[in-house]
Amino acid sequence: MTQASLIDGKAFSADLRGRIATHVARLKEEHGITPGLAVVLVGEDPASQVYVRSKGKQTVEAGMASFEHKLPADTSEETLLAKVRELNEDPAVHGILVQLPLPKHLDSDLVINSIDVAKDVDGFHISNVGLLATGQKSLVPCTPLGCIMMLKAELGDLSGKEAVVIGRSNIVGKPMAQLLLAESCTVTIAHSRTADLAGTVRRADIVVAAVGRPQMVPGEWIKPGATVIDVGINRVPKEDGEGHRLVGDVDFASAKEVAGAITPVPGGVGPMTIACLLSNTLTACCRANGIPEPEL
Amino acid sequence: MTQASLIDGKAFSADLRGRIATHVARLKEEHGITPGLAVVLVGEDPASQVYVRSKGKQTVEAGMASFEHKLPADTSEETLLAKVRELNEDPAVHGILVQLPLPKHLDSDLVINSIDVAKDVDGFHISNVGLLATGQKSLVPCTPLGCIMMLKAELGDLSGKEAVVIGRSNIVGKPMAQLLLAESCTVTIAHSRTADLAGTVRRADIVVAAVGRPQMVPGEWIKPGATVIDVGINRVPKEDGEGHRLVGDVDFASAKEVAGAITPVPGGVGPMTIACLLSNTLTACCRANGIPEPEL
Repeated sequence: MTQASLIDGKAFSADLRGRIATHVARLKEEHGITPGLAVVLVGEDPASQVYVRSKGKQTVEAGMASFEHKLPADTSEETLLAKVRELNEDPAVHGILVQLPLPKHLDSDLVINSIDVAKDVDGFHISNVGLLATGQKSLVPCTPLGCIMMLKAELGDLSGKEAVVIGRSNIVGKPMAQLLLAESCTVTIAHSRTADLAGTVRRADIVVAAVGRPQMVPGEWIKPGATVIDVGINRVPKEDGEGHRLVGDVDFASAKEVAGAITPVPGGVGPMTIACLLSNTLTACCRANGIPEPEL
Repeated sequence: MTQASLIDGKAFSADLRGRIATHVARLKEEHGITPGLAVVLVGEDPASQVYVRSKGKQTVEAGMASFEHKLPADTSEETLLAKVRELNEDPAVHGILVQLPLPKHLDSDLVINSIDVAKDVDGFHISNVGLLATGQKSLVPCTPLGCIMMLKAELGDLSGKEAVVIGRSNIVGKPMAQLLLAESCTVTIAHSRTADLAGTVRRADIVVAAVGRPQMVPGEWIKPGATVIDVGINRVPKEDGEGHRLVGDVDFASAKEVAGAITPVPGGVGPMTIACLLSNTLTACCRANGIPEPEL
């Protein structure tokens, strides 16, 4: 049996960031504009600190301005909302991201919905959700945006393909379904209550797994030749009991024997997320300045 | 072969309107509040005039206050927006509906999105779309709301059922899919680009047809025992060539031989739409006054 081709998210995201950097350089040269991304981090969550550092680094590498705002864990809602307001009004800031999760005393929905819709580069504002759901111009959540970019690069036209999304979260599963529908796939959303998950997955030309359960999708559920996008990043103990390794929601070893193409974990969807954040920031900057958006 | 049971939308909607009227009477008695629905009609479209008249009549019959605002076809956007603002601020108005379609010189999206989200009883405001898409408390578009009410009344718990929605419009197909997903169905959205529509429909426990093509779904596509909700209302010439009759998107004659239950056209989904508009107005009124929403 031939093995699936690997969809190399690391290489794809490096390419994408390269194209973004080219556009950013042109924006500076032709229009004197530098896209700016502001990241707000409340508290000291170690994982969040790592993410924010990576985001800042990649933002600068793409030639954009990075603004980091670190607030103490006991920041009041009022103070945080005032910070968002300040960034909404700052013309040097084209994208605003409030790193989640927020400390428990803060209302995430309220804070996210206080971000200017046009600067909401995470795509979590309720208006961006509504715009995406009605097929209008919006800012799209980064992870599903990365998935659809890879799918289009791999398969070209997606129209008429059977797509199955496993998982119905607001940040991946549901927007992913919207994006696949916008590409005219026949879209099924499956989840923990799905009666025949194996049978459902087996009819898919495109499988997007986004449940957060390690290796729950075995190769025998995959239709031969299907394209498999694995959004899961799960830490499991190593076989030898020493330390951990990362695995996806798909059992990679068995799936790669059946699929036509598959994203590995790590090195698949993961690296695309920050690249798409930069892409959204560039898009927001172009829209704010009435400049045609680049095709990325 | 046993024939499908009929899902009688006319009786169901009469029941629903009765329950609404009971709640309205109680609101008046216990809280001194009368729910109010304002309908804005721009121009003289004959079909729209008929709808608006029916809405007004049923609103009053349910014990609610009905406010009709008829504006000339050449009304400026500014004037229409001012009217919406006035209704947004009017405490006697709990629901606002701007009758669509608007004359071409008016921007429907702009007008709809100027309605107070909490008074948007059509559920078309982009924030209500986003709230529904993320599973939050929203006002739900009337036609899909009516469909899900009938499905729950017919089938009870929908969890784990295979549902196929044919059609991906913003006013029926997409919100219908969200509602079925919220009930934990495994949901597939099919449409004109679906490769194997017959096969897709054939696996469904629940079929919702919302495409606007007369009798396009034949009985042989229906899984025996499935529940069929036909949203289509299409005018076709009568067999004898004299006048017209109404048919759905489903071929009723053949489908009723296979389905477990089916909505007729007319008399199925149609009568539910205005009843759900009244239900939304009651819901909006209760929320505005901090009164628990009735289970309808």
